[in-house]
Amino acid sequence: MTVAPRRAADVPTWDEQADVVVVGFGAAGAAAAFEAASSGAETLVLERAGAAGGAAAMSDGFVYLGGGTPEQREAGFPDSVDNMKTFLKAACGPAPDHAKIDLYCERSLEHREWLLARGVRFLGTVLPDANGTSPVDGEGLMFTGGENAYPFDEIAAPAPRGHVVQGDRPGGARLMDALTAAALDAGARASFDTVAEALVTDDDGRVAGVVAARYGEEITVRARTGVVLTAGGFISNPDMVEQYAPAVHVTALRLGTEGDDGRGIRMAEAVGARIKRMDAIECALPFNAPRSLVHGILVNRLGQRFVNEDTYMGRVGQTALVHQGGHAYLIVDEAHYAPNWLNVPATWVCETAAELESEIGLPPGSLTTTLDYFNAHAADGNDPLFHKRAPVLTPLTPPLAAFDLRADKFFYAPFTLGGLHTQPDGAVLDLDGEPIPGLFAAGRTTSGVAAQGYCSGLSLGDSTLFGRLAGLSAAGVKA
Amino acid sequence: MTVAPRRAADVPTWDEQADVVVVGFGAAGAAAAFEAASSGAETLVLERAGAAGGAAAMSDGFVYLGGGTPEQREAGFPDSVDNMKTFLKAACGPAPDHAKIDLYCERSLEHREWLLARGVRFLGTVLPDANGTSPVDGEGLMFTGGENAYPFDEIAAPAPRGHVVQGDRPGGARLMDALTAAALDAGARASFDTVAEALVTDDDGRVAGVVAARYGEEITVRARTGVVLTAGGFISNPDMVEQYAPAVHVTALRLGTEGDDGRGIRMAEAVGARIKRMDAIECALPFNAPRSLVHGILVNRLGQRFVNEDTYMGRVGQTALVHQGGHAYLIVDEAHYAPNWLNVPATWVCETAAELESEIGLPPGSLTTTLDYFNAHAADGNDPLFHKRAPVLTPLTPPLAAFDLRADKFFYAPFTLGGLHTQPDGAVLDLDGEPIPGLFAAGRTTSGVAAQGYCSGLSLGDSTLFGRLAGLSAAGVKA
Repeated sequence: MTVAPRRAADVPTWDEQADVVVVGFGAAGAAAAFEAASSGAETLVLERAGAAGGAAAMSDGFVYLGGGTPEQREAGFPDSVDNMKTFLKAACGPAPDHAKIDLYCERSLEHREWLLARGVRFLGTVLPDANGTSPVDGEGLMFTGGENAYPFDEIAAPAPRGHVVQGDRPGGARLMDALTAAALDAGARASFDTVAEALVTDDDGRVAGVVAARYGEEITVRARTGVVLTAGGFISNPDMVEQYAPAVHVTALRLGTEGDDGRGIRMAEAVGARIKRMDAIECALPFNAPRSLVHGILVNRLGQRFVNEDTYMGRVGQTALVHQGGHAYLIVDEAHYAPNWLNVPATWVCETAAELESEIGLPPGSLTTTLDYFNAHAADGNDPLFHKRAPVLTPLTPPLAAFDLRADKFFYAPFTLGGLHTQPDGAVLDLDGEPIPGLFAAGRTTSGVAAQGYCSGLSLGDSTLFGRLAGLSAAGVKA
Repeated sequence: MTVAPRRAADVPTWDEQADVVVVGFGAAGAAAAFEAASSGAETLVLERAGAAGGAAAMSDGFVYLGGGTPEQREAGFPDSVDNMKTFLKAACGPAPDHAKIDLYCERSLEHREWLLARGVRFLGTVLPDANGTSPVDGEGLMFTGGENAYPFDEIAAPAPRGHVVQGDRPGGARLMDALTAAALDAGARASFDTVAEALVTDDDGRVAGVVAARYGEEITVRARTGVVLTAGGFISNPDMVEQYAPAVHVTALRLGTEGDDGRGIRMAEAVGARIKRMDAIECALPFNAPRSLVHGILVNRLGQRFVNEDTYMGRVGQTALVHQGGHAYLIVDEAHYAPNWLNVPATWVCETAAELESEIGLPPGSLTTTLDYFNAHAADGNDPLFHKRAPVLTPLTPPLAAFDLRADKFFYAPFTLGGLHTQPDGAVLDLDGEPIPGLFAAGRTTSGVAAQGYCSGLSLGDSTLFGRLAGLSAAGVKA
């Protein structure tokens, strides 16, 4: 079915009506529905799957919070709103969304309270010896954006901000349990197995509702005050990936649900919405667990290093995929070798660097030159190129092993960051830069805090905070 | 004024009428207008400037043609349609537009004849000692896409395809002289100082005309059979650059006219058009003239090489801007030193590599390591990393000089490659992937042959070929 809008005049009867209609019952949708319903608006959530959750429910459950949370204080990491802003503007560039980052940081402590009030629990523990990838039992706070790695550790005071949702894993499922229950308890209704297909517009261009398919039957849904699009990104739509984010085309995996087909974005475009940074992707590259592997060096297809190995693995993956064509190898020595956390063993093992270079197929002399330079400086505690820090900065002593981290071989997990261009209050902008009456959005249907760059927890974080604001805006409440 | 479409029912009278209305009188617009008028359609071109030309008239006048042109044969470079396709699919990736490239190559010989018939003249001369950047007198054919550099010289038989429009320089002005005269001679009318502001649509969604401002006064223009948008890219719109192509934000220069404000793209989006690859940019980096400078090596902010210096300077600029954050330095030795073609002298001159590295501010030991590796292999005629070729592959012997090629210091000249998602016949696709009735586009208002990557001459080439097809389609003629 077309995504072109239906005219309200062509809708003879409404099958469903509500003040606020929320499309998608993931993190952003649940937050939007809770706030809309709590404000007194009659609220209906349309969810294409048979249950709430979305991609959020599959995630590890990091929520990126800071500015001096009790958990940060308990763990001994002072933070401030300004410090958090400084970091995010550096980490989410070039050309970060200053307005969204400012509000995100200024609301972070309040948003944490809101999450606690919904039954979410955090812990003020940092476990330095945890695997550093997925959280383990008892782990409360993690560095999930390279805050304690170069260059960010010199730009802002390092503070962990990845607050892990406590309870059975994955934490994202616990978060969604809490937010789903909260939205329903607040009075929101949900219609499952209901795929939103197009928007309905009044003659004056105001968004007045949604056309959807429920169990395959077309229904029309009136939204008296606003529609909130929280329908996820477009990683599961191969055509849109090809059209907007071709860097992804080499990866074997994609991270999202089948509902992440971009339809929410296209429905809004069809009523004149503008989109932003559609090429932006995040891509976790879980090469760095167990932590001993971070002693190794990452090289590209030329045997050159291209990133500090001790930074956030999402930054590594993004860099490898977008700037190195998805070519990367991890070189590690015997002292620090272990099978990868995913139980992947090394691809090559050799007695010398020269042999390894040849086995991998790197240019002659390239890896040996890189290793000589790296080892000479690492022995003095220096990494002049990337400022990898102690204790993982050590010379590599043969025999050596290498993991094949090329994007078509390894577990790259990209998802899309581009989407509708919204104001922080959730209003969707049109092509002239003006809000479209009656239309709001949040989560990965929008371009959010991470318009480029990324930190784990920013997606759950901005989906829930800006989902709340979009829900209030759609209900006609000034946030 | 808004870009939102005007309803035809709200247009009481038409100030102008034609069968085909072309928006923009640059290369694509002139080609479209010629074909539409020649097919018998009443054709009107709306041009915001006081004369035809657009960005094309400012250009050097390369037209990317091949498949075995008489000029290629005369110069001794065999080429074939398949060879040209193979090259372009490698050079315009990842995920190139196969349909556009196929048609572009298959039509190339015919399109050359069409250009000749319009009075354009080419020459079958290759001048190996010319400066390699802007064409000089008597220069007919140039390698303008890295065809004779690695990896492309191993993927397809190297053939120069940058056909230089002959006559006074710049060649782009001569091309536009010819095409403008041809369009007018064919019967197309032009309305200058006329800025198209929005499209007009019928109740059934068909594009029926244009709202424009002529000398500041609103006029309505009916298009009986089709509108062709050939209004340039968006490099002169800072908001759109920030929204879509933030890599550009560091450059001091932008390449285009003030008319390249993206309005043509947004007008079409406002009637439901889809866009593609809006992050894609081309960026010439004229570091490589005189040719002796290509003996030097380009390094990034880490002192690492990142590209073969003997490839197309547009590939160098694109790589430097998109993948190296606009950080680049050219290191050259005394034997090959000369002030840059733009009369820029070296920024630093030092007796040793270590001093130079320190003066530039590169990491300790980085440039010396890079030079040692490069020199050792260059002495044997090898460049294991990037396969730079003889005769410009020579060891660099101190004293050394360095040019500061950072994007905020040097003459990067970016322009945008993203735009409307069109079929090869010029039909603009909607968000469902279906042609929008009555709407066609070509040139940099569209995503063209170079959906990523670039070769000089592709923009004049695809603007004129696909402009022709769009003009015919708008006139209702099957191309």
